Amino acid sequence: MTKHGKAKRGIPPKSDFNAWYPAIVEISDLVDKRYPIKGMDVWKPYGWSTMRLIDGLTRKEMENSGHQEYSFPLLVPEDLLEKENHLVSRLKAAREQGVDPSELRMEEEDSGFKKEVYWVTKGGENELDVPMFLRPTSETPMYTMFSLWVRSHADLPLKTFQIVNTFRYETKQTRSFIRVREIHFFEAHTVHKDEEGATKQIEEDAEIVQRLMKSLCLPVLVSKRPVWDTFPGAWYTTAVDAVMPNGRTLQIATYHHYRDQWAQAFDLNYEDINGKIQNCHQTTFGMSERLLGAVVGMHGDDAGLILPPAVSPYQVVLMPVATHINEEVLPKIREIADELRSAGLRVHLDDRDKRPGGKHYDWEIKGVPIRLEFGPRDLAENKCVLSLRTGGKVDANLDNLSETISLHLEDISDKLLELSSIQMSNLVKKFPGLKSTEDGWKMISPIEDGIVYELAFDGNDADAEVLEKTTGLALLGDSVEPYLEPQNCVITGKLTTRKQHLARMY
Amino acid sequence: MTKHGKAKRGIPPKSDFNAWYPAIVEISDLVDKRYPIKGMDVWKPYGWSTMRLIDGLTRKEMENSGHQEYSFPLLVPEDLLEKENHLVSRLKAAREQGVDPSELRMEEEDSGFKKEVYWVTKGGENELDVPMFLRPTSETPMYTMFSLWVRSHADLPLKTFQIVNTFRYETKQTRSFIRVREIHFFEAHTVHKDEEGATKQIEEDAEIVQRLMKSLCLPVLVSKRPVWDTFPGAWYTTAVDAVMPNGRTLQIATYHHYRDQWAQAFDLNYEDINGKIQNCHQTTFGMSERLLGAVVGMHGDDAGLILPPAVSPYQVVLMPVATHINEEVLPKIREIADELRSAGLRVHLDDRDKRPGGKHYDWEIKGVPIRLEFGPRDLAENKCVLSLRTGGKVDANLDNLSETISLHLEDISDKLLELSSIQMSNLVKKFPGLKSTEDGWKMISPIEDGIVYELAFDGNDADAEVLEKTTGLALLGDSVEPYLEPQNCVITGKLTTRKQHLARMY
Repeated sequence: MTKHGKAKRGIPPKSDFNAWYPAIVEISDLVDKRYPIKGMDVWKPYGWSTMRLIDGLTRKEMENSGHQEYSFPLLVPEDLLEKENHLVSRLKAAREQGVDPSELRMEEEDSGFKKEVYWVTKGGENELDVPMFLRPTSETPMYTMFSLWVRSHADLPLKTFQIVNTFRYETKQTRSFIRVREIHFFEAHTVHKDEEGATKQIEEDAEIVQRLMKSLCLPVLVSKRPVWDTFPGAWYTTAVDAVMPNGRTLQIATYHHYRDQWAQAFDLNYEDINGKIQNCHQTTFGMSERLLGAVVGMHGDDAGLILPPAVSPYQVVLMPVATHINEEVLPKIREIADELRSAGLRVHLDDRDKRPGGKHYDWEIKGVPIRLEFGPRDLAENKCVLSLRTGGKVDANLDNLSETISLHLEDISDKLLELSSIQMSNLVKKFPGLKSTEDGWKMISPIEDGIVYELAFDGNDADAEVLEKTTGLALLGDSVEPYLEPQNCVITGKLTTRKQHLARMY
Repeated sequence: MTKHGKAKRGIPPKSDFNAWYPAIVEISDLVDKRYPIKGMDVWKPYGWSTMRLIDGLTRKEMENSGHQEYSFPLLVPEDLLEKENHLVSRLKAAREQGVDPSELRMEEEDSGFKKEVYWVTKGGENELDVPMFLRPTSETPMYTMFSLWVRSHADLPLKTFQIVNTFRYETKQTRSFIRVREIHFFEAHTVHKDEEGATKQIEEDAEIVQRLMKSLCLPVLVSKRPVWDTFPGAWYTTAVDAVMPNGRTLQIATYHHYRDQWAQAFDLNYEDINGKIQNCHQTTFGMSERLLGAVVGMHGDDAGLILPPAVSPYQVVLMPVATHINEEVLPKIREIADELRSAGLRVHLDDRDKRPGGKHYDWEIKGVPIRLEFGPRDLAENKCVLSLRTGGKVDANLDNLSETISLHLEDISDKLLELSSIQMSNLVKKFPGLKSTEDGWKMISPIEDGIVYELAFDGNDADAEVLEKTTGLALLGDSVEPYLEPQNCVITGKLTTRKQHLARMY
């Protein structure tokens, strides 16, 4: 039955990840990709509900850390970009000339943003005087307002966030949740009195991400990005990467320390306690539906999704196993459902007129952590059978059932994190090393496809370029977990504790 | 203190509603209107939180009635509009020629939608092959997908909704929540086997609106709109209007019975139980941030907002009254706050270093239903003082405080509904009548500014035009609560139970 069903629904084996992923997001009913704009999927109820649960975890973290939720307009008039353009070009020039950005006086130039956004040029039949673009991210609209809101030290810190859709005119191949043109986006923007305040915020962001990753059962690599991969206008960028089963890394969260660089561009300053005007320091923290992409990609198997209990729309699905005598079983199973719900569990009762095998199969595809079977004989014995999506069936007594289920959900979370950690460590290997030859640098042994390489690297930008060119991979930057014992840098040979990774990034 | 504060913050008296409304939405911190696009406000945390609570009520109703939440893309390619254009022009022609729409064969024409939307014409620096518009509402994108999803009778009913932003290129004067260019929108779209199924859905929608209005303490007029004010493609439209204090009506909800008119245009059909292909019947149901506009406008007073307890971000604000001995009072008041929270109340503890008068004033502006004062003497006497936003102070014992507060919140809701019902009935008057003269129809006595007129009307479209032209007001349509005793139609003189209203609409 199950095998037949599988073949019918056509789930490719997960070992063929590049076929499995795009198939499973539709087969499990997360999205429909047939909407006639590439990279803009329709969120179906199951996918949307899962995403909203992920948002719920984020909102809870925001609330606990004193952030407040705003909602800014989608459209940004082109002329607001001037400040951003000026900032980005100044920083770029400063980097190229090796000087402090604040010392530079120069003409502004295009930040390049214009090439990545959708432009609204007409309202009705009228050409707009000033074209507007759909926000790709919200620095410009937000900081325009922040500079009106922040007056004195008493207004700080200002900790804001919003969960909105952002847009990119994406020319690369699109993939559900991973690379899309309409992005379900979370962005926190904070304003502080000084660099130290902003640094503390970055530390808080790092802790929040850790807790979220634990809820999503996702092991990750956290790196301070190299300077050429730093967000425009940021002092530094820390990025969180998941390693997908095909060995490509997926950037699922970033937090940026802006120092006072954006604040200077946007006249965002405050009067300090001594009446002196000071520039603000800022941070941002962004995540998106890529979190769901990572959950799908990391945890699924040949039979479908496996959703972490924290974000599974249904944590338990109750299934009467004998449909022809439903009348005997249903009242009791409804009672159990209510009991589990009042214990705070997300419960679905599948009372469809369908064979138990078919129901098992459906909920397996959707990755429901626990399926609960219950027949007339079980009723007599005061028990039920739990099928765990991570494998195995167990009998459970109906007394204290919600506690039993809660414990199994915890076990499932632990197991998912364990499995995905093993998977990740199998995909991350020690870099085999380079050798210098007459024709330049060469690999000691060939690069394996689908592998992330860990290496000690302490070279300069030119050395990094050598590394990237020789391997065809990208440097993720300095791991936040450096080596405990110094290692030899793969290029310079110098001893260093700086741990880095080379990977093919999504 | 309070008087001084009021003058300082400059709240106009509510009797000058057209000045009060735009001032209070900013003074109470619901929105900031300084964003550089007219009609696109920034939602501030207090406003956004209130709107999200309103959405929460809506979501609960959707869940209870078996609707599922989707999220469709914002952008719609222009070529998808063809079907809609064809439908709208066919219905218009059928109406003009007095024939059944299905009998007409004709060329399509422009639905007029094009003039009301924002157009995305460029992605990056490229002109798009097919321009796209920002959804003004989602019939076209949704029904394009529905026709892929619905195959057989087993797929029906399909009950969907989404809460998203929609956009209108609005050329009239914009007003926060009332007439904006980026609209926070709720839309339910359902598909049924037959007309009867759709009719039952319309009845369900009516019940949902009634319950929502009760939660928001809003009395409303519910009318079946005249045919010229029916939504394009609808068989009929039922609209829910609030009567704002200036006597203008605000349409805050509509539900439309489409019969199979849209389904025909979008090839939305199904195989019935006998294997025969049948057209689907459809309904939609829409609401927006106008709900918040009505709440603000109907319930506020000279001192600020008054928020209904069901959607107030804070139902109770706790204020220690003696700041210099906070240390004595604070631990106890924190304990009370936790206790109230665990009873399910939304609670804020205002422990700012500020005089009690100033705190009272701040929370009065924000319309918090109950302020709870608590000093060292109260502590000794095991009591506190509740200030009700609808007026009055009462002592409350600290035992069973959450029950006491819940009862007061219910009273406040009742009082708000009572007050706004009285307000509405003062604004709705019996129509004085018309007289036929040599120069045509004239008013028997002059129209009063800011009044909604109730009248018996059973005339045809030409009669309706006379009524609207003579009064300068718009017909809201047939009230769902007709007269119990027949009355004489104000134009034809014939006896009728059809009750209608004439009003100036927002």
